[in-house]
Amino acid sequence: MYIRQDILDAVAAKKMPEDRTFGKAVLPAICVAQYKNGQWSEVELGFDRDHRLSGGSTAVQYAQSIFEGMKAYFVHQVTPQIFRPYDHAVRFRRSAERMCMPPVPREMFVYGVNLLSRLYADVIPREADGALYLRPSLYGTDYSLSIEPSESYQFTIHAAPTIPFSKDMKSVLIERRNSRSAVGGTGGVKAAGNYAAGFQSLTRARQLGCATSLWLDPLESKYIEELSLMNFFVVREGELHTPTLQNSFLPGITRQSLLTLAEDLGLRIAERRIDINELIKEIETGSVTEAFSCGTAAVVSPIRSLKEASGTEYVFSDEPGPITRTLRKQLLDIQEGRTADRFGWMQSV
Amino acid sequence: MYIRQDILDAVAAKKMPEDRTFGKAVLPAICVAQYKNGQWSEVELGFDRDHRLSGGSTAVQYAQSIFEGMKAYFVHQVTPQIFRPYDHAVRFRRSAERMCMPPVPREMFVYGVNLLSRLYADVIPREADGALYLRPSLYGTDYSLSIEPSESYQFTIHAAPTIPFSKDMKSVLIERRNSRSAVGGTGGVKAAGNYAAGFQSLTRARQLGCATSLWLDPLESKYIEELSLMNFFVVREGELHTPTLQNSFLPGITRQSLLTLAEDLGLRIAERRIDINELIKEIETGSVTEAFSCGTAAVVSPIRSLKEASGTEYVFSDEPGPITRTLRKQLLDIQEGRTADRFGWMQSV
Ligand SMILES: Cc1ncc(COP(=O)(O)O)c(C=O)c1O
Ligand SMILES: Cc1ncc(COP(=O)(O)O)c(C=O)c1O
Repeated sequence: MYIRQDILDAVAAKKMPEDRTFGKAVLPAICVAQYKNGQWSEVELGFDRDHRLSGGSTAVQYAQSIFEGMKAYFVHQVTPQIFRPYDHAVRFRRSAERMCMPPVPREMFVYGVNLLSRLYADVIPREADGALYLRPSLYGTDYSLSIEPSESYQFTIHAAPTIPFSKDMKSVLIERRNSRSAVGGTGGVKAAGNYAAGFQSLTRARQLGCATSLWLDPLESKYIEELSLMNFFVVREGELHTPTLQNSFLPGITRQSLLTLAEDLGLRIAERRIDINELIKEIETGSVTEAFSCGTAAVVSPIRSLKEASGTEYVFSDEPGPITRTLRKQLLDIQEGRTADRFGWMQSV
Repeated sequence: MYIRQDILDAVAAKKMPEDRTFGKAVLPAICVAQYKNGQWSEVELGFDRDHRLSGGSTAVQYAQSIFEGMKAYFVHQVTPQIFRPYDHAVRFRRSAERMCMPPVPREMFVYGVNLLSRLYADVIPREADGALYLRPSLYGTDYSLSIEPSESYQFTIHAAPTIPFSKDMKSVLIERRNSRSAVGGTGGVKAAGNYAAGFQSLTRARQLGCATSLWLDPLESKYIEELSLMNFFVVREGELHTPTLQNSFLPGITRQSLLTLAEDLGLRIAERRIDINELIKEIETGSVTEAFSCGTAAVVSPIRSLKEASGTEYVFSDEPGPITRTLRKQLLDIQEGRTADRFGWMQSV
């Protein structure tokens, strides 16, 4: 494919950014396509600054906007490889449908993430835990104050080289006051609106020394759903447990991959409703010994404790547990190309 | 105040737009201010095209974005007058706080809507039911893929001359499947994320010949909350009823004004929980005879019937009822300057 010279120049001039804190060093060239009159344009490379949108667009005014988060790895591989791009494409389509937006064809989505990963191959951190974080998004661009779905849309893919979050053990705030998603709301898809709605809880969590919040079900505020940006697992008497999927929280691709891996490793697994108050008792009696969060950004991240808003703390353990460590290692071994990809998850770009 | 010549030229060249369907003819000049390093800039006039934002901003990616909708009237008045600008400023502040955004000072907010209304005085439709619709909004402009509140923000005010929705009697779909807001969610403020989340229901409503959806409470799907863009009233045995405010739906300024007006007119009023199934029985027995929606855009709009997704229809009445008509007329008389503003609601710009 032909790539504009100014984009090649910008990419060539691009040094590995200094600040590789998650998501901060967004690269200037993006993939972009436009939807107008019922049709998608080709995916092109462009500069973010040339594809800005109005504050009066349906994206900004009504949050008609969705995104995905995925990673291209280039550690032990000979070319960059993306983790489960087709599964992200499928979830992107489901998100688009929920928000009344035209789906982005799967091939177009995968073509875009491949193109950008190839373009930026030289700035993908090749150390362990490094990756190119890819952020496909789709949003309404109609400039109209009447509150209804847009007729025009923009599909963009932004990218940022990244090394993961710190590996310190985290505490998590039990969010007993607010729910993240209504029944029949948008919690089951990656809608923009789900995220800023959680900032208030994030602020409260940080004030209590917690990294994030644990959300409970919208009807009884009793059953665990997920963390603000990650899914949730615990280990009880050697068995791996995670909440059964509900349409009020996100079906994580990392979550699903870990269930597959765990089964393959011969671990006993259970998807079930997890009552927060029972879980607290089980932490106290010592039958639950490990907990971790999982998602594209942090992969697998051990949780030290749960905290109530009152400050009361329930500690799982002070060190990452054996099952947490095994699952993290096994998944990263596949993602970073140290072991065979026996599930067909990695796609070369 | 000094106004740039190119803006004055653009405004002078501006004919009354042909298409005054609600919200479609957005005017090119806007008010704009920037928040950076913990401080607000002055409010200026500018062109929308010069203040675009990145698709990678927290506004677009995470829906860190709020808005207000308000109107400047210029019918029988000698200068344009805005309806309850300070009350909109207060709600805007509450919305900003919920979404972890810096509040826009009340004086700045009111200065902005006044400035724009003066600038566009000549294109405000001076016929009955005409107005300048004003759309203040506030959104995060940081370009970052890390999911947390922005550090920089933009405050804009867009405007569109408008004549109200058609006055046909509307049918409304009873939304029994989805909830609009979670408990502790963002339903009580004007967050962008509340709106696109309702597009799916709007699509279903239209397929059934309905104009909008009626939302029920998030816990039991039983008590009426509001319509997608408006509050809800019924008349039962001559008494005016509306749902008691909950933090899951918007405290409408029109709703509050109508309660004040009704009390002043000596009507009996009740704010109470309204059970949808009891309401249906009361429609069928004939004790509930009128229903209407209210909000800035449509003012007071009679509702002909409620419909179930199955198609079953419950008809209030085929003609706007007497209390609906009285309240609509009384409110518009104040807004359009035909009667004395005995509540101090109108502010000259
Ligand atoms: C709300 C939420 N839950 C869970 C996840 C984890 O999903 P995945 O493993 O597909 O990244 C994410 C991140 O994508 C998320 O935003
Ligand atoms: C969800 C919702 N409910 C109710 C209203 C009515 O509020 P107001 O009378 O202040 O315009 C609006 C419109 O602003 C709204 O968006």
